Amino acid sequence: MVVKTLFTSAEKLDEIVQEFGTPFHLYDERGIRETARRLHAAFPWVKGPDGKGFMNYFAVKALPNPHILDILREEGMGTDCSSDTELLLSKATNITGERIMFTSNNTPAEEFKLARSLGAIINIDDLMHLPFLEEHAGLPDILCFRYNPGPLAEGDNTIFDPPEETKYGHRHDQILEAYQTARDKGVRRFGLHTMIGSNKLNPNYFVRTAGLLFDLVGEVAEKTGVPIELVNIGGGIGIPYQPDQEAVDLDYVSRSIQQAYEEKIKARGLAPLQLVMENGRYVTGPQGILVTQVRHIMQKYKDFIGVDASIEDMKRHALYGAYHHITILGRESEPQEKLYTVVDSLCENNGRFATDRPLPTPTRGDILVVHDTGAHCYAMGGNYNGKRRSSELLLRENGDVTQIRKPETIDHLFATLHHAGVRCVLDSR
Amino acid sequence: MVVKTLFTSAEKLDEIVQEFGTPFHLYDERGIRETARRLHAAFPWVKGPDGKGFMNYFAVKALPNPHILDILREEGMGTDCSSDTELLLSKATNITGERIMFTSNNTPAEEFKLARSLGAIINIDDLMHLPFLEEHAGLPDILCFRYNPGPLAEGDNTIFDPPEETKYGHRHDQILEAYQTARDKGVRRFGLHTMIGSNKLNPNYFVRTAGLLFDLVGEVAEKTGVPIELVNIGGGIGIPYQPDQEAVDLDYVSRSIQQAYEEKIKARGLAPLQLVMENGRYVTGPQGILVTQVRHIMQKYKDFIGVDASIEDMKRHALYGAYHHITILGRESEPQEKLYTVVDSLCENNGRFATDRPLPTPTRGDILVVHDTGAHCYAMGGNYNGKRRSSELLLRENGDVTQIRKPETIDHLFATLHHAGVRCVLDSR
Repeated sequence: MVVKTLFTSAEKLDEIVQEFGTPFHLYDERGIRETARRLHAAFPWVKGPDGKGFMNYFAVKALPNPHILDILREEGMGTDCSSDTELLLSKATNITGERIMFTSNNTPAEEFKLARSLGAIINIDDLMHLPFLEEHAGLPDILCFRYNPGPLAEGDNTIFDPPEETKYGHRHDQILEAYQTARDKGVRRFGLHTMIGSNKLNPNYFVRTAGLLFDLVGEVAEKTGVPIELVNIGGGIGIPYQPDQEAVDLDYVSRSIQQAYEEKIKARGLAPLQLVMENGRYVTGPQGILVTQVRHIMQKYKDFIGVDASIEDMKRHALYGAYHHITILGRESEPQEKLYTVVDSLCENNGRFATDRPLPTPTRGDILVVHDTGAHCYAMGGNYNGKRRSSELLLRENGDVTQIRKPETIDHLFATLHHAGVRCVLDSR
Repeated sequence: MVVKTLFTSAEKLDEIVQEFGTPFHLYDERGIRETARRLHAAFPWVKGPDGKGFMNYFAVKALPNPHILDILREEGMGTDCSSDTELLLSKATNITGERIMFTSNNTPAEEFKLARSLGAIINIDDLMHLPFLEEHAGLPDILCFRYNPGPLAEGDNTIFDPPEETKYGHRHDQILEAYQTARDKGVRRFGLHTMIGSNKLNPNYFVRTAGLLFDLVGEVAEKTGVPIELVNIGGGIGIPYQPDQEAVDLDYVSRSIQQAYEEKIKARGLAPLQLVMENGRYVTGPQGILVTQVRHIMQKYKDFIGVDASIEDMKRHALYGAYHHITILGRESEPQEKLYTVVDSLCENNGRFATDRPLPTPTRGDILVVHDTGAHCYAMGGNYNGKRRSSELLLRENGDVTQIRKPETIDHLFATLHHAGVRCVLDSR
């Protein structure tokens, strides 16, 4: 049983609320560094060409804040980018060259050009992207190819459709052709990638995925002679959003993948091979909280707590019904007397953070903590109903708190408008 | 059968593509005006106090663009606002006083103050909001109250949960208390509101809802002596997103509501009563299209068309699986040879505009038109994966095209960051 504790004291959090006001996301530098180190240390047996060890490419989409990327760069992480914006954030944080994996799909020419200019490892998603890349940006020395095992993937993939329904990657027959074509066009170094699950807590998912790719490395070598030097098994390490969920046992995952490596790669003379991943949620998810204040307590047909954050700050419950644990600051151990539905002020039926959640009886002004908002929370926000996204704060290891993203204001919302009346309203404040 | 035709010629649209580039939303001024006039003319029998006729308060959340609000103001519409942003957009377009209905929930004090300062009709959502409003902004002369019929609501409400699960409005026992309290505190004029369905194509939904409120007007008068002068039956008139769906017969709705009015209001001596609605989608939904270009055609386990718009421009299929009709410009009558899934470039499994849709075989560079994007499309966008929202264009009645919202740039995305590296990247372009 994982107990949801805060990464800081109630007193400290209360101070931060007094200084910055609610709502805000708060991220924990210490937790991010410790998680990065734990992940990087979990696969000590990996030795790729030139002795390259295991590395995680942080999925920028999970938490696209450059101050967070600075921390991850210092911890030796790379970035997994899916767009020009994410490539530019990598550049802005001095993450370049093969520390960037550009895994995009339906890619425009400009983004291929930008990825090439940064020296990123380009991960080709589709058979037609190879000639498109060649035409618009030229072919690099190294290329990675995304594989979609389709019906060959075993097991449950709860978040994703069956892989064959998704838009990602090459079919089995296509990927063999892709490697041959790339080799014939002069590409010299090769990687292989897949990503068929998300937020997985079953450790065997990762073992199965690695085994599937190791088999394919062997098949590609045998059928085409192309030597693959890098295998990216994707991200997808889940986090225990619910207090009774267990974290993934990284040691078990590592040992099991090592065993598959010995059998499928080393024994077949296919070593050295570098193993990498591209986790986002695992690295930062539990290291963030959304802090919001109780505005109204409302008794209707059900009991509602109205808070000052909106689902534009955290949409995972509204979108997927996803569970995020919620506690009331300083009242964590009080009896949970009733079921409350925690809502925002959007005129939208799914404007909720939790549905029918047991909580202590709240009081107006109480501080609510929504846990595990360090990934895919701020990132998924918008401005529906004219809501403004909250700020992001970073709790430094020394206890200082830095605002690493300003809250949106009405000026930001109206920035793409050129309308005299709007200008007048902004000027008259 | 409704055939999805364009509101402009293929030649004109092609010109607009050449001038502005894709992707963009294009709205049709003529269609918006015609729809506003049709709606306002549909209830000629309504005569409220001082002869006030039927009026629609446009739900700003559907299409929060001030240039559109300017058109609607000219057509005599008011605004239905749910937030300070929407109140400010009303102010910016000279829509003030009782032309604004402020229907919010979990409302902060500042928004009540702003609504009061604009003279808006405030629609109280919760029993506790009345003393809260009084404390923070004082009580106005007129107040409206939102009713949630809970299990008393009949029929299907496909988009919403059962009303009793939602966060909106007063229970039956509460609303009687609310009117009494408000009257005792000196409020003199009263409205009644409910909104329990969305995108309804069944005309009887509106008749039932009006009947429910008319009955309540009588009950409130009888039990509390409070005279209600305004009934807002909410919005929710659906639009035929699918070509084989039928539009709502407004004449039938009007005649049937008039009959209920005669029986439940007039015959009981409760007239005059003004009837209003708050439709957004009905007014602008069919008057918008998202225009996007084919970037890649991809054969995987299925056939995919990759376009240059992202779901941040139109998320309704991704969120709800909602149907939006898609045509290929200039090829509308060609045989639909295959099923295509139309996708964006987000690294997100639901990055789709349509799933398994019969379409003619496309060619790279073809222009795709996503229909009925005039409501809840631009408005729901954000910046996931670093995507930038598209521009909004308005086709004027005289054929001119005005850009009424600029496309987002990387500067907009990074506007809330203060990070030296990001600054450097922006400056070095």
